Amino acid sequence: MSDLPVFGAGIWHFATYKDRYATNGYGPEVGLLEQIDRAGAVGDLSVVDLNWPFAGFDGTLDDVRAALARNNLRAVAITPEIYNREYVKGSITNPDPAVRKQALTLLHEATELAKSLGCDYVKLWFGQDGWDYPFQVDYRAIWNLAVTGLRDLVGAHPDIRFVIEYKPREPRNRIIFPSAARTLLGIQQVGLDNLGVLLDFGHSLYGLETPADAAQLCIDHGKLFAIDVNDNFRGWDDDMVVGSVHLVETFEFFHTLRKNNWSGVWQLDQFPFREDSVEAAKQAIRFLKAVHRALDALDEEALAAAQASHDALAAQRLVQRVLLTSMVELSS
Amino acid sequence: MSDLPVFGAGIWHFATYKDRYATNGYGPEVGLLEQIDRAGAVGDLSVVDLNWPFAGFDGTLDDVRAALARNNLRAVAITPEIYNREYVKGSITNPDPAVRKQALTLLHEATELAKSLGCDYVKLWFGQDGWDYPFQVDYRAIWNLAVTGLRDLVGAHPDIRFVIEYKPREPRNRIIFPSAARTLLGIQQVGLDNLGVLLDFGHSLYGLETPADAAQLCIDHGKLFAIDVNDNFRGWDDDMVVGSVHLVETFEFFHTLRKNNWSGVWQLDQFPFREDSVEAAKQAIRFLKAVHRALDALDEEALAAAQASHDALAAQRLVQRVLLTSMVELSS
Amino acid sequence: MSDLPVFGAGIWHFATYKDRYATNGYGPEVGLLEQIDRAGAVGDLSVVDLNWPFAGFDGTLDDVRAALARNNLRAVAITPEIYNREYVKGSITNPDPAVRKQALTLLHEATELAKSLGCDYVKLWFGQDGWDYPFQVDYRAIWNLAVTGLRDLVGAHPDIRFVIEYKPREPRNRIIFPSAARTLLGIQQVGLDNLGVLLDFGHSLYGLETPADAAQLCIDHGKLFAIDVNDNFRGWDDDMVVGSVHLVETFEFFHTLRKNNWSGVWQLDQFPFREDSVEAAKQAIRFLKAVHRALDALDEEALAAAQASHDALAAQRLVQRVLLTSMVELSS
Amino acid sequence: MSDLPVFGAGIWHFATYKDRYATNGYGPEVGLLEQIDRAGAVGDLSVVDLNWPFAGFDGTLDDVRAALARNNLRAVAITPEIYNREYVKGSITNPDPAVRKQALTLLHEATELAKSLGCDYVKLWFGQDGWDYPFQVDYRAIWNLAVTGLRDLVGAHPDIRFVIEYKPREPRNRIIFPSAARTLLGIQQVGLDNLGVLLDFGHSLYGLETPADAAQLCIDHGKLFAIDVNDNFRGWDDDMVVGSVHLVETFEFFHTLRKNNWSGVWQLDQFPFREDSVEAAKQAIRFLKAVHRALDALDEEALAAAQASHDALAAQRLVQRVLLTSMVELSS
Repeated sequence: MSDLPVFGAGIWHFATYKDRYATNGYGPEVGLLEQIDRAGAVGDLSVVDLNWPFAGFDGTLDDVRAALARNNLRAVAITPEIYNREYVKGSITNPDPAVRKQALTLLHEATELAKSLGCDYVKLWFGQDGWDYPFQVDYRAIWNLAVTGLRDLVGAHPDIRFVIEYKPREPRNRIIFPSAARTLLGIQQVGLDNLGVLLDFGHSLYGLETPADAAQLCIDHGKLFAIDVNDNFRGWDDDMVVGSVHLVETFEFFHTLRKNNWSGVWQLDQFPFREDSVEAAKQAIRFLKAVHRALDALDEEALAAAQASHDALAAQRLVQRVLLTSMVELSS
Repeated sequence: MSDLPVFGAGIWHFATYKDRYATNGYGPEVGLLEQIDRAGAVGDLSVVDLNWPFAGFDGTLDDVRAALARNNLRAVAITPEIYNREYVKGSITNPDPAVRKQALTLLHEATELAKSLGCDYVKLWFGQDGWDYPFQVDYRAIWNLAVTGLRDLVGAHPDIRFVIEYKPREPRNRIIFPSAARTLLGIQQVGLDNLGVLLDFGHSLYGLETPADAAQLCIDHGKLFAIDVNDNFRGWDDDMVVGSVHLVETFEFFHTLRKNNWSGVWQLDQFPFREDSVEAAKQAIRFLKAVHRALDALDEEALAAAQASHDALAAQRLVQRVLLTSMVELSS
Repeated sequence: MSDLPVFGAGIWHFATYKDRYATNGYGPEVGLLEQIDRAGAVGDLSVVDLNWPFAGFDGTLDDVRAALARNNLRAVAITPEIYNREYVKGSITNPDPAVRKQALTLLHEATELAKSLGCDYVKLWFGQDGWDYPFQVDYRAIWNLAVTGLRDLVGAHPDIRFVIEYKPREPRNRIIFPSAARTLLGIQQVGLDNLGVLLDFGHSLYGLETPADAAQLCIDHGKLFAIDVNDNFRGWDDDMVVGSVHLVETFEFFHTLRKNNWSGVWQLDQFPFREDSVEAAKQAIRFLKAVHRALDALDEEALAAAQASHDALAAQRLVQRVLLTSMVELSS
Repeated sequence: MSDLPVFGAGIWHFATYKDRYATNGYGPEVGLLEQIDRAGAVGDLSVVDLNWPFAGFDGTLDDVRAALARNNLRAVAITPEIYNREYVKGSITNPDPAVRKQALTLLHEATELAKSLGCDYVKLWFGQDGWDYPFQVDYRAIWNLAVTGLRDLVGAHPDIRFVIEYKPREPRNRIIFPSAARTLLGIQQVGLDNLGVLLDFGHSLYGLETPADAAQLCIDHGKLFAIDVNDNFRGWDDDMVVGSVHLVETFEFFHTLRKNNWSGVWQLDQFPFREDSVEAAKQAIRFLKAVHRALDALDEEALAAAQASHDALAAQRLVQRVLLTSMVELSS
């Protein structure tokens, strides 16, 4: 078997959640250090993506470093919280210049933290930058604010990478970077080498993309800097456990990554609202190991031949042969 | 012009919100009495639907009564919060019998409150009763729990009505009462006259129903006890302001109600996350008054003739004639 | 291993298709007898569902019988074509009484044919009965026409079963029987024992149902008379090969059937537009045999325990263990 | 009132249709010359988009010219039929090089015809270029074929424009040019000035875009060469009459065009399956004239102020004021 990939997770995977109904939360709050310990308890995780500011945390950065160290974890990324109360009408595209400035300050600070922690990248997720209603915004104006803001931020830190995690919607009804292609257009316009894409499998799926095709597109533009995986019912970002529903398309996604020798982290972005978070991560990784095993077993030559004639049935047969035997050893 | 309908709103319309990202809320918390005062400030509202328990409220019931009175508002309904932390795996269908019992206790208490406030009905919204993953539940077992729990609750209070507000999903990925037809089947099985349906226009719309058809179905079963209105982009329960997107279908929905001489409250269930809540209600009612005016102006005879031959174009012409002139007086 | 189920297919699986763009068809026309021979060539099919009238066929019924016999096939059902040019504004709900009468005549004839061929049921698929535009129809009137027409037809033939195959939409934008629950309400209203439901897995899936739950609902009403399987991307009736996308939910669907000792035909309703139709059927049955094998291997006791506590992760682990090893023998 | 726009239509608007069920068509076939006469009968149409080859037409090109002339119509575009039987697995991306060559031959011929008729552009709609199943194609390979084929075609005809009409799906489950952004990326890669976008409002809508935003994006890239309008229920390309459902978003779309001084044809791409095609066009234009009137009346300054603060409610009020009074004169 080929070497296993590096597994990672967003640290929020190990938190508890609120939503607009369960406003008192799906469980007691879990502190940052405990979240890190839970990530460590999964056993297969090597890296985590940390939100910043550290919400509700009154310890020091050294406490965080120590918690990471004792769990053999590295911070692979910082995700600045530019989607909380101050930014509900946008961060770098907020109609208020003062808020835009405040957002940039936060983003610069988050970037410095990322550098000091040796992160690979800063993750930019513009969940509140967009619109909710017809006629609410001037589309050219808001797009230009996004491009300008990104140029200011990313251009100031040539020593670290930034990724845009695109998403069609939620919490805004429409988000400024909704798809791989639109994000690539924006990145072109920004014009900086250290800005790329984080492709979240679930976002791609419910955004009507074919995730493997979106991955190939980003790779062909030299911009697939990172990925997240999870699953959903194709209508919303359910952030379910990887492999819950779309086994074949998840497999196809990782097949595309391997074919291109893409070697980044296989990172979980799941929201186990009602599940044990450690178990949810273990279950996902169990499936991902089966995927990895199936990739080793896939007859690439035969698949290439099937694809050369667009033979869907032949391809499906080859895929089922390895996917539907992928847990033989794992389950013994 | 015919008499205006009675307008109402869920009291949460005037609160602020949280979601899984803006966990510190879309604005400072608004207390219950202030919510009631805001409802009063709209000017056209006559009734409100109150959640219970009164979250974060340390006043007395008399304080609530007084606030309603000073704003000329009546409590039309109580909506028990059976979707908070204790119930995230279900209320009356929770796998734990102790939680089911606790839910029923809460529901009985809410019902007593509804009676003491002279409400028209208790609203049951089973947002956490359902499932998230394939194979998670035994479908017959969970359905039977729902029917049994409803029978226990509704049968104990023949002196007040109960409504089930159906919804396809959110917060659970799948909710036990997802559609009008499924809810009517459940109500039949419960077998009690004082149990009916609350049809939320937006839920119907994004659940692939035609809201006017769903309303007719409930009416023909004698079960359309109440309605809520709002709008969305047809993929999720966006709870946007009425008339933001689906003007024609909103008009058709109210046309069906009028045709059947349905005379209940025109009630708002909007979530103005980033908007002024009083203004959002005013805007909705402004549109609803235009709808009401257009209903008065509609050539019913010609419409009936068009529908008798399924003539979509003739019907559309008649509808546009009144809808696209409906604000002439309002806007002057 | 337990006995294999009986496999079947709609005979149209082996035809070629047209659509609104490729109006000259996806391939040369395939005559009815050749379609039957192709069904026979699959090797695992025991029954077929035949359209009637036999479009473009100038042979005799005996020719059809002979073709079935030489391929060891039985006609399990007749599907009358009440969705062709004469019926594009509806069959039994057509606004024109003359067309309604013509539709009933056709339906009676199809029923006589079904009886003479020893079919299990007549399949009613009301693809053109519904509406396309807001305000196009009077919803009560069209529903009542459907109920009345069904009563006339089904009541006249107590010696054979009828099934309604529900579908959310296509070709009409909205179809009169769109969901399991709505169809059960209609069947209740018709009030005849020999009228039931045909549940098409794909229709259920893209209609926002959970197919296994819909199956349980129909079973609990004593009305799951037949099923069809296929797959899709959850937004449209793509009629893809079984097991292309939704492996887990297909497995859950058949698990529900087995749990209820449902013993009908596992029937294909696929449209292999661009694929070899015999190969498409073989590929589907290959997957269905793996499903059948996985059902044998599933730890039902452990699954019941997981479901008793709504433990999605434990259930998923049990399911993956059998599904992701299900092709070990098949692929050897 | 400002000058009315130029109205146009795809000539197929005046044909009859088939689909996979009504294989004998929704009505008797309408010949090409009769289609043109029907277009003329609408009264407000100035241009038409013609398919080529002229399916089932045995007259001469002069006959076509004469029919156009007698109806005061001009051919604004040619749409080559690269989606019929020969091309069901793709035209310029077909796996078979011989078919790709044949497609290019057809495309060159169509282009010559377009030039000889004085058309503004050749419309390329790649409905059969894409994939249906996971793992069916190599995404990089198929994309490169599309880019190469476009370069060959468009580069050979610098004297006329070409447009790509993007669409998410249908008839292929996934189409190679599914969105505005993806199409712009492809156009960039082709690198030719005479290649642009045709934005079909309905395709944009059901593709999860905001059509007005997509229009602005194309305009900002200098690539909005043409538009089509129609309407749908947001889940499929229903090609309903303009203004059936999405009145506000249609208005916003045309508002964006006017704001940018875009002066192309307002072109209908409707499929009136069950409606009189002349009446369907008249109804659409009646609504579009109301849109045009509302644009004249809209308080642009106030709207710009509302948008500057992302004030959705203020914007909505301004829009409803003009839209819901837009038929006052028309209906009098």
